[in-house]
Amino acid sequence: MTTASKGNAPAPRPAGVLAPVLTPFRADLAPNAEGFLGHCNWLLEHGCSGLAVFGTTSEANSLSVEERERLLEHLLGAGIDPAKLVPGTGSCALPDAVRLTRAATRAGCAGVLMLPPFYYKGVNDDGLFRFFAEVIERVGDSRLRVYLYHIPPVAHVGIGPGLVERLLARYPGVVAGMKDSSGDWDNTRAMIERFGHSGFDVFAGSERFLLATLRAGGAGCITATANVNAAAIRALFDAWRTDRADGLQQSVNAVRSALERYPVVPALKAIVAHRARDTGWRAVRPPLVELAPDRADALLGELRAAGFDPAA
Amino acid sequence: MTTASKGNAPAPRPAGVLAPVLTPFRADLAPNAEGFLGHCNWLLEHGCSGLAVFGTTSEANSLSVEERERLLEHLLGAGIDPAKLVPGTGSCALPDAVRLTRAATRAGCAGVLMLPPFYYKGVNDDGLFRFFAEVIERVGDSRLRVYLYHIPPVAHVGIGPGLVERLLARYPGVVAGMKDSSGDWDNTRAMIERFGHSGFDVFAGSERFLLATLRAGGAGCITATANVNAAAIRALFDAWRTDRADGLQQSVNAVRSALERYPVVPALKAIVAHRARDTGWRAVRPPLVELAPDRADALLGELRAAGFDPAA
Repeated sequence: MTTASKGNAPAPRPAGVLAPVLTPFRADLAPNAEGFLGHCNWLLEHGCSGLAVFGTTSEANSLSVEERERLLEHLLGAGIDPAKLVPGTGSCALPDAVRLTRAATRAGCAGVLMLPPFYYKGVNDDGLFRFFAEVIERVGDSRLRVYLYHIPPVAHVGIGPGLVERLLARYPGVVAGMKDSSGDWDNTRAMIERFGHSGFDVFAGSERFLLATLRAGGAGCITATANVNAAAIRALFDAWRTDRADGLQQSVNAVRSALERYPVVPALKAIVAHRARDTGWRAVRPPLVELAPDRADALLGELRAAGFDPAA
Repeated sequence: MTTASKGNAPAPRPAGVLAPVLTPFRADLAPNAEGFLGHCNWLLEHGCSGLAVFGTTSEANSLSVEERERLLEHLLGAGIDPAKLVPGTGSCALPDAVRLTRAATRAGCAGVLMLPPFYYKGVNDDGLFRFFAEVIERVGDSRLRVYLYHIPPVAHVGIGPGLVERLLARYPGVVAGMKDSSGDWDNTRAMIERFGHSGFDVFAGSERFLLATLRAGGAGCITATANVNAAAIRALFDAWRTDRADGLQQSVNAVRSALERYPVVPALKAIVAHRARDTGWRAVRPPLVELAPDRADALLGELRAAGFDPAA
């Protein structure tokens, strides 16, 4: 640490069901801060234990640094508890990652979710270690809690066990956990088994693995689908030790399976637009493309067939 | 175009040998603006016809938007002719791409080199078209010249012929060409054959394809190696219609082959550090890692064996 702790205790460790919160845009593609706040409140009221704002599902990499800063300030100014927030702060550019991580930490956020720098491919663990170490050292705040974000299907730069081990050894307590969006349960289980005893909280990147994650000793899930199905996923989390757990897991899987036949961000926005009766919610920033009305109707039909009420 | 032309004529079309200029960093990893300017001047004095600052080799995606803006302003303030500059302005975030593209265009740069938004994978041409169209419309300046940057080994999001065709049809004259860093000569040749007659200037992303590109009707190359071997690549460009061309091509290939056995950015910086007698040049931003001294020595030896004097 290059500077001393700011003196405040860190927020409690997040666990349970976190949503990578969708970011609504206005017709001119500017972020809709009021709609964002409203959706955050809806998620907290419907079962989310935390909000991983500025994730992949949030189109965060389609936002400028300033836009992310202003949206975070809007949430905090409106009274969202920072202890509920785990903002995405990873970036290809070291100064951007430092700036976003520092702001989130100073605001009292429970942690930050950090992508690796994802532009250069074939980089080694030395370089990735240096990146995370530089961010941690430059932020220099003992309240910082870093959750590593492993999403190789999108980032194409992964975070493997060797890197986690080095980071945990150098920054115990600061390196607090991982979101594993590899879609590979064997990887999630291995991360829990190897590092779970070190205060390293592993979140599955999909509710499909929520029960298995909890049974293995993981912390929960951070899942796109929570944007529309938070209550059911939370019900599974709350009941995971009961004999209803497997049935609840099957129910949330059915909803996810219907969703997975569509591009995820446009599909989730189409569902929120339907529920909120606000077609503006359909807007995405390029290179994403909103769901055409006929495909949105088909999606809503498939969700109903899977036992999900998209208007609720 | 949403606003009228600013009234100035666009700069002449770039051609020949362009360098994606290395970005030097100080010990604290801040950009070294004076070193950057000095290297730009060295490149122009040693054969580069233009400077593609803020490319992949420039570690541009490791720079913040503000850092890129300040470095560009430093070059212009020091008298670098904007007609020599083709800055990289692509970004995952639409507002960043607009901001950088607008600044370069207003400054009179010859064009901009635009990566596609590269975070989301599996996006379709509709979304990529919208991205480039939004940038072009929002910049709204008839002087704008966009060079599309196709580098699938790194970006994992490519720019195919269908997208080029749509962009050229909608924005003729503005969409001015491409840098093809696919490493696939068949793709480069197809782009030249299909679009070269439409005022679409194709640059190979490697001098290995320079002669073939010129013979097929392309405009030149934008190549990392120009950072250290500009004079020889320029000599090939100047002599491409002569009977010395194939021999000159073989000579530059030999240097490139030696370089390609090392990670390109750290290797190029090690060579500049050697030539400039400034070890500070070795610094890279994470996730890249500088070349270890023994590997740098080995590289210099291999370059000498390939007929290249790394001290010149």
